[in-house]
Amino acid sequence: MTDRLTIAQLQTPALLIDADVLERNIAEMATALPGPRLRPHVKAHKCTDLARRQAAAGHQGFTCATIRECEGMVTAGLGDDLLLANEVLDAGRLGALVAGGARVTVAVDSPRTVHAAAAGGVREVVIDVNVGLPRCGCDPADAGQLADAARKAGLQVRGVMGYEGHVVGLPDAAERASKTKTAMELLVAAHADVGGGLVSAGGTGTYACNTWASEIQAGSYVLMDTAYGKLGLPFGQALHVLATVISGSGQWSVADAGLKAFGMDHGNPELAGLDGATVWFCSDEHTTFSPALPVGERVRFAPAHIDPTMAYHERAYVCSGGEIVDVWPIDMRGW
Amino acid sequence: MTDRLTIAQLQTPALLIDADVLERNIAEMATALPGPRLRPHVKAHKCTDLARRQAAAGHQGFTCATIRECEGMVTAGLGDDLLLANEVLDAGRLGALVAGGARVTVAVDSPRTVHAAAAGGVREVVIDVNVGLPRCGCDPADAGQLADAARKAGLQVRGVMGYEGHVVGLPDAAERASKTKTAMELLVAAHADVGGGLVSAGGTGTYACNTWASEIQAGSYVLMDTAYGKLGLPFGQALHVLATVISGSGQWSVADAGLKAFGMDHGNPELAGLDGATVWFCSDEHTTFSPALPVGERVRFAPAHIDPTMAYHERAYVCSGGEIVDVWPIDMRGW
Repeated sequence: MTDRLTIAQLQTPALLIDADVLERNIAEMATALPGPRLRPHVKAHKCTDLARRQAAAGHQGFTCATIRECEGMVTAGLGDDLLLANEVLDAGRLGALVAGGARVTVAVDSPRTVHAAAAGGVREVVIDVNVGLPRCGCDPADAGQLADAARKAGLQVRGVMGYEGHVVGLPDAAERASKTKTAMELLVAAHADVGGGLVSAGGTGTYACNTWASEIQAGSYVLMDTAYGKLGLPFGQALHVLATVISGSGQWSVADAGLKAFGMDHGNPELAGLDGATVWFCSDEHTTFSPALPVGERVRFAPAHIDPTMAYHERAYVCSGGEIVDVWPIDMRGW
Repeated sequence: MTDRLTIAQLQTPALLIDADVLERNIAEMATALPGPRLRPHVKAHKCTDLARRQAAAGHQGFTCATIRECEGMVTAGLGDDLLLANEVLDAGRLGALVAGGARVTVAVDSPRTVHAAAAGGVREVVIDVNVGLPRCGCDPADAGQLADAARKAGLQVRGVMGYEGHVVGLPDAAERASKTKTAMELLVAAHADVGGGLVSAGGTGTYACNTWASEIQAGSYVLMDTAYGKLGLPFGQALHVLATVISGSGQWSVADAGLKAFGMDHGNPELAGLDGATVWFCSDEHTTFSPALPVGERVRFAPAHIDPTMAYHERAYVCSGGEIVDVWPIDMRGW
């Protein structure tokens, strides 16, 4: 007999993490990219308990997307080497973490962000280089000059980062590899001008083919989603949204998880383990799908995009078999 | 001199509510649908401070989509007449609210949900009728029988509800009115079989043309979004997401609000007050747009869909002119 909560007892919607799939994903990645070769990106899960599992697999450095994520990691005792892979104009909260003994390195891509890092009390930066995605990062030709400016401002320049975000999701593996090469050649050239030990890049879609980066910033691999699921990567879907069929017409079913339970930018979630099922549409608190199932039935959805899905939920239930073996707060939400 | 926080001092991304537009929206709706003619839907904002403004305008009954929203409203002292316009299979938490003195009415559309309401300690229900949207609601022909079953189970049946969600967003006003009529004729017929005082229906898109419902469940009118903004309704955009330009290339700008700051199911947010601006795409924590603006510039986005946008944020800053006059927790998130 056990006192453990079972999945059947959960109120829905609820995030479920399959402990076994999670551990397999972590182990698979730690074998491919051991220790410092992987700098797991916490934006994918926003959960310090999950980050602790990644640290236990040998990864001591982490990537963050927000100041709040840095603060959460430090509070959890996981602040040995955090890279905020994003630009900030007010770095005071990061400086406070550094003053408290954490190691926080921030991305800079302009004189203004260099100044902000120095003014905020951050001591270490990487030069963020645009490698083809129209987003952050300086022109590769400007990277050396920006590194000089950072050093003049009293900052230590640890190297470069450049995210090939326009490549990570390409369905064709050969094209993904070829375009990663093009992107990383820009980053490597910028690195020659910048110096420092870090060449930080990559994501779940390019972790295996990006052989130029000294460390890969993959995040999604640990939980996965249906978008990355299409790429044939050796990672399993560890996260589902558990829902209950609360209504139905004989032609369709209505589950009690909707737009506020799923990141929708990559499209509708998919029903897991239900052959021939089709999601019709999501409303705020509902998903209508076929086939018609009895009211009371439980279903599981695999989200199309993991990151904005996690950001909607307060906690995740870690399960093994039908039992809940842990409850993890999604404690790095917000900004 | 004032000690008030200004918008310029806010860390971004941040939800901004324009106090003046908000009050105009509330007043406009209270004139069109005074007192009990409107049962504001709190799912649109998930904020008890905002609900309190709606109550002050004369609306004492509210619509909720989740149990958590009911609990939040009761905690805030706004539990005089809550309608959970959704089906639940475990009504125990609702029963606890009723036992504590709140009035909570729940939607039922099947024998199973009738049983759940009675078993959970809820005393009042409405019969949820499908009026054309493939989602919840019983067949109109079954409504009377379901009401009988509810009464046999000891429940008081307050009437019917039926949401014309397939109609509220139609761009053509005449088509919206005509399809509302078709939907509401189904509801009125079901009401004749069910009895009770309530014929609850409608939303922001049909508040003016739905003359069959005794009360309208509109929510979005109070803050608005770009989807409803296209319908020519007399409500202004009261909510924006404030963001900072953190990077740019000379061809584009990157703002620090992305997929975790906007509900994306209706598409990209729009830049407010910036003629000719175009959103290129949103990433987890970024939106890339043109034109190229200086790093440090502040911009405001109007979300495409208000409800899932609010659910991402912990608080909203209520502003008048450039000053923050209040900070409202988004305190009814989660389930």
